Amino acid sequence: MWGNSSNNANLSWFKGELHDRDIQDAEAYEFVEHEYEHEHDYETSPGLSPKSLGKQAAYEEGSSIDWVREEAAERERKRAIHSRRGLHGMLGVVLDSAGLWLVIILAGVGVGVLGAWLDVLVKWLGDIREGRCREGFLYNQVSCCSGLDPGQICKEWQTWSEYLHVSSIFGQSLLQAAIYIALSIAFAGSSAVLVLTYAPYAFHTGIPEIKAILSGYVLDQFLGPWVLLIKALGLALAVASGLSLGKEGPLVHVACCWAFLLSRAFRQFRQNEAQKRKLLAAAAAAGVSVAFGSPLGGVLFGLEELDAFSNDSDVMWRGFVASVIAAGSLQYVDPFGTSKLVLFQVSESETVWRGFELIPWMFLSVIGGLLGSLLIKLNSAAAVYRRHSQLNDYPILEVVGFTAITAAVSYLVVFLRVQSSELVANLFQECDPTKQDYHGLCNPTALGANVFLLVLTALVKIAFTAWTFGMMVPAGIFLPTIAIGACLGRAVGLIVQGLHRAYPHALIFSSCPPDISVRCISPGFYAVIGASAMLGGVTRMTISLVVILFELTGALSHVLPIMISVMVSKWVADACGKDGIYSMWIAMRRYPWLPAREYRDRGETAAHVMKPAVNLVVIRDGDGGCALGELDALVRARSFRGFPVVSGEGELLLGIVMRDRLRTCLEELMADDPNMERRCTFLPPSRVGPGSSGVVNLSGLLEEAVLQLRKDVPLELVVNMFQKLNLRHILFSQEGKLVGMVTKTDIAWLLTSESHSMHAGALAEKYQ
Amino acid sequence: MWGNSSNNANLSWFKGELHDRDIQDAEAYEFVEHEYEHEHDYETSPGLSPKSLGKQAAYEEGSSIDWVREEAAERERKRAIHSRRGLHGMLGVVLDSAGLWLVIILAGVGVGVLGAWLDVLVKWLGDIREGRCREGFLYNQVSCCSGLDPGQICKEWQTWSEYLHVSSIFGQSLLQAAIYIALSIAFAGSSAVLVLTYAPYAFHTGIPEIKAILSGYVLDQFLGPWVLLIKALGLALAVASGLSLGKEGPLVHVACCWAFLLSRAFRQFRQNEAQKRKLLAAAAAAGVSVAFGSPLGGVLFGLEELDAFSNDSDVMWRGFVASVIAAGSLQYVDPFGTSKLVLFQVSESETVWRGFELIPWMFLSVIGGLLGSLLIKLNSAAAVYRRHSQLNDYPILEVVGFTAITAAVSYLVVFLRVQSSELVANLFQECDPTKQDYHGLCNPTALGANVFLLVLTALVKIAFTAWTFGMMVPAGIFLPTIAIGACLGRAVGLIVQGLHRAYPHALIFSSCPPDISVRCISPGFYAVIGASAMLGGVTRMTISLVVILFELTGALSHVLPIMISVMVSKWVADACGKDGIYSMWIAMRRYPWLPAREYRDRGETAAHVMKPAVNLVVIRDGDGGCALGELDALVRARSFRGFPVVSGEGELLLGIVMRDRLRTCLEELMADDPNMERRCTFLPPSRVGPGSSGVVNLSGLLEEAVLQLRKDVPLELVVNMFQKLNLRHILFSQEGKLVGMVTKTDIAWLLTSESHSMHAGALAEKYQ
Repeated sequence: MWGNSSNNANLSWFKGELHDRDIQDAEAYEFVEHEYEHEHDYETSPGLSPKSLGKQAAYEEGSSIDWVREEAAERERKRAIHSRRGLHGMLGVVLDSAGLWLVIILAGVGVGVLGAWLDVLVKWLGDIREGRCREGFLYNQVSCCSGLDPGQICKEWQTWSEYLHVSSIFGQSLLQAAIYIALSIAFAGSSAVLVLTYAPYAFHTGIPEIKAILSGYVLDQFLGPWVLLIKALGLALAVASGLSLGKEGPLVHVACCWAFLLSRAFRQFRQNEAQKRKLLAAAAAAGVSVAFGSPLGGVLFGLEELDAFSNDSDVMWRGFVASVIAAGSLQYVDPFGTSKLVLFQVSESETVWRGFELIPWMFLSVIGGLLGSLLIKLNSAAAVYRRHSQLNDYPILEVVGFTAITAAVSYLVVFLRVQSSELVANLFQECDPTKQDYHGLCNPTALGANVFLLVLTALVKIAFTAWTFGMMVPAGIFLPTIAIGACLGRAVGLIVQGLHRAYPHALIFSSCPPDISVRCISPGFYAVIGASAMLGGVTRMTISLVVILFELTGALSHVLPIMISVMVSKWVADACGKDGIYSMWIAMRRYPWLPAREYRDRGETAAHVMKPAVNLVVIRDGDGGCALGELDALVRARSFRGFPVVSGEGELLLGIVMRDRLRTCLEELMADDPNMERRCTFLPPSRVGPGSSGVVNLSGLLEEAVLQLRKDVPLELVVNMFQKLNLRHILFSQEGKLVGMVTKTDIAWLLTSESHSMHAGALAEKYQ
Repeated sequence: MWGNSSNNANLSWFKGELHDRDIQDAEAYEFVEHEYEHEHDYETSPGLSPKSLGKQAAYEEGSSIDWVREEAAERERKRAIHSRRGLHGMLGVVLDSAGLWLVIILAGVGVGVLGAWLDVLVKWLGDIREGRCREGFLYNQVSCCSGLDPGQICKEWQTWSEYLHVSSIFGQSLLQAAIYIALSIAFAGSSAVLVLTYAPYAFHTGIPEIKAILSGYVLDQFLGPWVLLIKALGLALAVASGLSLGKEGPLVHVACCWAFLLSRAFRQFRQNEAQKRKLLAAAAAAGVSVAFGSPLGGVLFGLEELDAFSNDSDVMWRGFVASVIAAGSLQYVDPFGTSKLVLFQVSESETVWRGFELIPWMFLSVIGGLLGSLLIKLNSAAAVYRRHSQLNDYPILEVVGFTAITAAVSYLVVFLRVQSSELVANLFQECDPTKQDYHGLCNPTALGANVFLLVLTALVKIAFTAWTFGMMVPAGIFLPTIAIGACLGRAVGLIVQGLHRAYPHALIFSSCPPDISVRCISPGFYAVIGASAMLGGVTRMTISLVVILFELTGALSHVLPIMISVMVSKWVADACGKDGIYSMWIAMRRYPWLPAREYRDRGETAAHVMKPAVNLVVIRDGDGGCALGELDALVRARSFRGFPVVSGEGELLLGIVMRDRLRTCLEELMADDPNMERRCTFLPPSRVGPGSSGVVNLSGLLEEAVLQLRKDVPLELVVNMFQKLNLRHILFSQEGKLVGMVTKTDIAWLLTSESHSMHAGALAEKYQ
């Protein structure tokens, strides 16, 4: 159902054709110059109350859900369960609650296990680019060489040249490089083919779409089982190919797909879009929890970046539970046999930091903010160029070509040859005489060469990442960003360490211990600071970032400098442009999503964005109600998502009726009365006169809660209401009369254009 | 200004007389059976637009602020600054922003320094109960004995019996006990006298009031400079007296007082209640950050418990900065010379936990949840008993008497003799042969006695805490709760350790290392789990609690079991009653504060809580407007905080006008026209006919954003709107006509009564 059949639509989605129109349609109320009028007398046909008054109509792909209606449905369902008497009733309550927690637990366990096996797969795929295990082809290098004493050379692991018995050094190098590059290309290419053929929604990180979905956007195809399978597999291939991408964001997407699959087995989620989204939010938190081994970071990511727990402590609690369980499952499966959640352990011996170190750290933070902002700009420029160039038609060729370049350059720049996670782990590590020195990083005589190589690595990686993030493969931005930051941080750390070695008695180093052999500067921690700064600049997250970073590194004693560095880097980056990388992609794709940031108008009122009443198609509930036939014609003729209803006398606003509910109801009425000759009214039953017994009362179709405001309220208040209440529209009235309407799309567009994004809507070109 | 002059009012506040009436008045619209009508013709006096239309009226103590109006004023101020041209304008913008951050930084630094010196003061006061320093009276025991090699006996510190040369052992014990008890009584008594005489608002924890204030309640006296001084001093005395209380909550109050003091120096905060509250939220976060040495925990506490950053990432960001700076200042001042933020360092050697340990931990979590719930119930019962008994009139006597009992019992139960923080630090510590054994806790042969003593300590402390929290001294609940939980946890840990020693080869211990001399069970970490469980049961916090606990202990590798224990304990406790201890105090005092928890109605609509229009006092803007004199009479006669305005023709709802603004405006008009003969209208200027040039147009006084809803919207939606939008009232209209109104007080009361709190409103007896 989800796979091939929808391919054409999917394909055009990533090319920005069909999909962007969908979005634009999602909430648009066209400007029409005439009003829809019909004033007739009552007819006398037998009264009928359609059963569909309370029924749900399914949402169309691309629309936004009505939170109020969904919550009401959930309330109704709960009440029905609680109202049952006796044992049956009690059982119902228990089963309902058990179902909820079962799904949360299954989601957590599934995400944890999935994450663990992805790790294993990636490690194996990555390692076979360099060699194979004598014991069995399916072992990776670490498990192949396990059980050896330290210092012993691992003979079980053969490089390809050893396996093929190539003896000349030149031949060995050439063969190794050739196999390395060929396999990289094969991995990335097959990832791209899989994505393009089976699930185009599986490309990119997925976080922007998930943000939109959690805020109410309907995009069920994005979470289908094929996407789950392809994204997981494609992600492993893409990461193993050595492209400059991470697995963190896509893992969140995979977690959401998994939860979506689960939700279809439980009625309480399947039938309620709001409940489904609350479950997705918990799964997303679990995804982050597994991606970084950071259960708290997951919850905070959900809170800060996904904005998914808006003041609802119940949902946050579920996210918390899912995160804990996912992290627990990951630890239980223990893919790398370390039985630790902390991925990049730093500072085995607890080091104290010194005041003067704030100076290089400030410098790093400023650099991180600037480069982060640059990375965002480069990435959006690359995405726009890709869309408008020939490349748009050859996505697989692009992936293959770029992988070849990446693999070739990576093989030359020695730090890039290993996977990013390994690079980061090594950069975060302090020099320890008892351990192997990673590429001579700890060699004080090679200071200049090391710094040059690190800076070069960072610059190359910025360029690679800016292009890779947006290609036709699953790709996350977190790990490359961390790697860039870690390279820069380590470079600065090495320089400061070099200065200390050269001038140990300089005034600035006076707080160091007088004994030079005692370590004063810890370049490994400088790498952590660099990573924080870079992440702050790219993602603009604050608290969740700090928590993730210190759960990632275990550097609890150093939480203060990490916080300061995130702070400064965000300030610097914000000065260069308000949007983080995810917001920028949302703006480029023009999803109906409202950033949580505070909006300040310049004195405008709601009238500034409001569509005035004369431009709206309204239903006029005249003296004798309105004819069903005319309503039917209206629904068929107009594709707007809702119609305001006004009374015939005095044109007083009665409410708003949504198109999907009206259509469902009309279809049911038509079954009884094919000619649609009856009349209907939207007035409440108590208001309808006794002479109108034959009139169908449709007042139950009116939206339960329509906000009415005066049109001269400040615009920022309107924006605030949309942000906090998840509304789809606000009506404006004056003394009871309809004055105008504002929809969520209007507000999303207002906020996007206000942020001065260069490429806002650039991937939605149809509507520029 | 804040001190003695307001004493009488303050005194009666804590007795629940004046203050509770204030609260009840805050938003009440009385039920009156007649409507206020006046329909006259226009008079022709010269037109005048009162200048006060845009002006702010000061809020009365006990009212709730209007967030919309305050935000609008802030917007106006910002626009005025930005509209200035040239250098002057740029300077204005920079200065404005600099002012904001200066206040945040000053608040952070102040809170950090304040917290550090409070620590020093408490330590010194606590130590002089047992002895004095030979080097100088002002040294505490640690600084007196510093500079000694480990193992060396400190001769500088003299117990009182040494100082007074008492030689008999019996005499020594007696003298020590007498001085200990006498000084405890003296400290607690003087704390109570200070509080009662100078600042009754300084008693208790302050968190419930701060929650109410941050949500918009006006209680400026609660944050005055006298309260700052007395609460800080009284807190040090109360903690040093050995009463069962902590410094954490009161420190948050002190932080808010400090920020309030700062805010008065800056116009942008002094003149804007909303901005002031945002600053207070940041200061509260800084307070928690310093109290626990937990900068992240501070931010999360503000987010979860104070609900202070509702979706506003700007405010959260400020809290983040303030927290970091406060923690940095604390670390810089470094009151105990450890240069560490972590207060109770655990697990110096990183220990791994084993699956079977989840069983005792689950047991602990359930016990923690039950005892936490019990503690809440005991505490509320004690508070209600105190209010209704003779004790209400003799608060100082109560404090003195109870301190005597506490001191006497504490001296006997050896674990209670030291300050709670020291007890907790020792209980969290693993046994280490190289360190001193704390009261034989590590002695395996004394297992039974230790467990008995620990459980006894916990039970005694529950009883003490339940009574102490609410006496006439500053008192926090956090530390005693941690101590209770740590005692229980250590006891369970000792039992499990004993079992392991007795049956090392039992199946359940199979995951332990085979070598028995290697530690398998870490009782110190069981104490941490016990503390988490107990805190979860008492405060019902989740994420912030976990973060605080692991920043407090540095137990990063054990974050998963801490999370699980908080989770389970909250579940258990929630089953025994929904409210945490702070919510319970808010309910007892009946503050207009809305808990953030999700409210589910049972099918009720807004009509269920709405005051119908016939019961409201409304202003009727008749054909010729209304007479100023009658408005004046209305404002004088009625004490309601606002009046809905309806038009004369058709009774269509125009909006709502707040009493304070109307009064300010009328007073200004009266200065020009003492007889108040003119007429006025609330219709927008565009709607007023040409013949009415002499009519004063008051439409600017109407509230900018009044929500209008249909009266048949679900009640839970109404509650949700109040919670998320910080509203003071919602109007209900049907076809433009006023149908009724709901105020924040109605909703607060609805939620309180819904939670089935036993003693809801018990400390607000006037209105029961």
